[in-house]
Amino acid sequence: MVKDLTLAVDVMGGDFGAPVTVPAVERLLCLHQEVQTILVGDEAQIASCLSRRWRHSERIQVIHTEEQVFSEDPVSVALRQKKRSSMRLAIEQVRDGLASAVVSAGNTGALMAVSRHVLKTHPGIERPAILSAMPTQTGHCHMLDLGANVDVSAEILLQFAQMGSVVAQHLDGIERPRIGLINIGEEDIKGNALIKKTHVLLQNSTLNYIGYIEGDRVFLGHADVVVCDGFVGNVALKFSEGVAHLMAQRIRAEIQTSWLRRILGAMAFPIWNGLKRQMDPANYNGASLVGLSGIVVKSHGGAGQASFLNALGVAYKEAQVNMPEIIARHAGAQVSL
Amino acid sequence: MVKDLTLAVDVMGGDFGAPVTVPAVERLLCLHQEVQTILVGDEAQIASCLSRRWRHSERIQVIHTEEQVFSEDPVSVALRQKKRSSMRLAIEQVRDGLASAVVSAGNTGALMAVSRHVLKTHPGIERPAILSAMPTQTGHCHMLDLGANVDVSAEILLQFAQMGSVVAQHLDGIERPRIGLINIGEEDIKGNALIKKTHVLLQNSTLNYIGYIEGDRVFLGHADVVVCDGFVGNVALKFSEGVAHLMAQRIRAEIQTSWLRRILGAMAFPIWNGLKRQMDPANYNGASLVGLSGIVVKSHGGAGQASFLNALGVAYKEAQVNMPEIIARHAGAQVSL
Repeated sequence: MVKDLTLAVDVMGGDFGAPVTVPAVERLLCLHQEVQTILVGDEAQIASCLSRRWRHSERIQVIHTEEQVFSEDPVSVALRQKKRSSMRLAIEQVRDGLASAVVSAGNTGALMAVSRHVLKTHPGIERPAILSAMPTQTGHCHMLDLGANVDVSAEILLQFAQMGSVVAQHLDGIERPRIGLINIGEEDIKGNALIKKTHVLLQNSTLNYIGYIEGDRVFLGHADVVVCDGFVGNVALKFSEGVAHLMAQRIRAEIQTSWLRRILGAMAFPIWNGLKRQMDPANYNGASLVGLSGIVVKSHGGAGQASFLNALGVAYKEAQVNMPEIIARHAGAQVSL
Repeated sequence: MVKDLTLAVDVMGGDFGAPVTVPAVERLLCLHQEVQTILVGDEAQIASCLSRRWRHSERIQVIHTEEQVFSEDPVSVALRQKKRSSMRLAIEQVRDGLASAVVSAGNTGALMAVSRHVLKTHPGIERPAILSAMPTQTGHCHMLDLGANVDVSAEILLQFAQMGSVVAQHLDGIERPRIGLINIGEEDIKGNALIKKTHVLLQNSTLNYIGYIEGDRVFLGHADVVVCDGFVGNVALKFSEGVAHLMAQRIRAEIQTSWLRRILGAMAFPIWNGLKRQMDPANYNGASLVGLSGIVVKSHGGAGQASFLNALGVAYKEAQVNMPEIIARHAGAQVSL
């Protein structure tokens, strides 16, 4: 299964740039001996962030550029005016067959637009979607779309389901992934016209469709793949993150209310630590832009080293199985739009 | 401000019925001396659940009916075939001026449909919405719509904002409540056509509109009122509940992993207890069906006593300020559709 593989990294993307992305790349190289990387960004910055051990490694190639896409850049600027941005050059490595995947913590809209422009979607796939793993009580599920498509059709949602199913099959080894469609109730009469139409398409598909699903059951682990449009998915994701932060803040506030509680809180450290290890957003960092002819993984802009390493790991796993080819074979082919 | 007020209670609604709703009513009566109640449901069941102290109280009137709306009943059955259901008779008490508010833990779709049929919306209000308080880092906000309207227009969302603003003004005493519109980013270019149109209507309104808001900022307490359509609102709510349960489950699981941790977990009891007190869904139980000519409060179907008491408290507070009249005066009047 393991192949020689090269990851292109947009070193400049995200809130912290090279000081976070470069050390994360070094850690990935330590973990996986067969990995090569192409770091795209400011050469001097990259050099200053590389540790001595890796400075002259043959496993790291640097492509120098001073141009970068900023988080506030409109998509049009990234697309038309920044043709030598670190983001774009990194994506072009995949297009040119020099890398099997690209990872960037740059602005999501720009990354999607430039990737789509440079790499194109698979024949038969109408729209790429943003897919990410989400923690559940029993492990994790894959959810898509998380924000790329605010207006979709039932056919597009069916394709998202097919792509999600392929990802769960090949990344998690689940033979017949359970597919759920997000709705506001689980009875047939619930939902709007789009949802009802998608429900029928999914029922008539070859997928292992389990029907409508609500957020509480998503976190109970009732589905392996959860499908929704990008508006709903993004809102659900942001609310989920918001609640997790709120609970963490409330726990901290409860601990701070007295000396006794501070001591108890300190003693309970292994419990917090275990909770953190399991719920840490870093473990779920790395959303895939599925449906493109190459692997593009988006890291959270505010990712730290551990978090960016996780995104690199997602790209690595997808590259190992050659995810775009599998998606093209199994998802794109099934639908004629 | 405090007036004599009577609450009608659908005793049979919810997963547990009278054994939960009747004791909760008794607790409300202890808390508020000026409250009277009309309990609608099976007389024998009510009698068996009433404690001796309240059995012959003049503050409790019972309306007997054996018919009830079940959670699996379609809206059409509740509306057309169950004209003597405890839910409907309770709502009719409000229509007939015998009660100032009604509380039910019955099925949401049926409660909304029957309430709308019996009470009607205010003149000038096109659609009722489901509004509930949500916890934030700084207190709480009000969010609507949480599931009544899956297809809306920009004008309807504007009305939701106006109703939410009135609720925050009169329940929380906030002079100019900050109104946020749920979107998948905070820049002007984000969102679909409906959201962009609503954004313009809100900017041109007299409301204290703060612009687009994402879930993470909702929980940071950046808005007093959060507006969205019922599909998005319901999904956001269910995901939020799901994450909260997941975290609670993970904390319990972390504590169970060893004897030492169990002891630490037990010692940290005051911390859990404080967290529970603040984050307990019971504290937020009781969603208002705003926009109707009377006060209707929906309790969670699975509510226990404390939780149902909270829903009764929501009805009590709205009745105190005569919320429907205020909404009619301030929200309905501002919009001509």
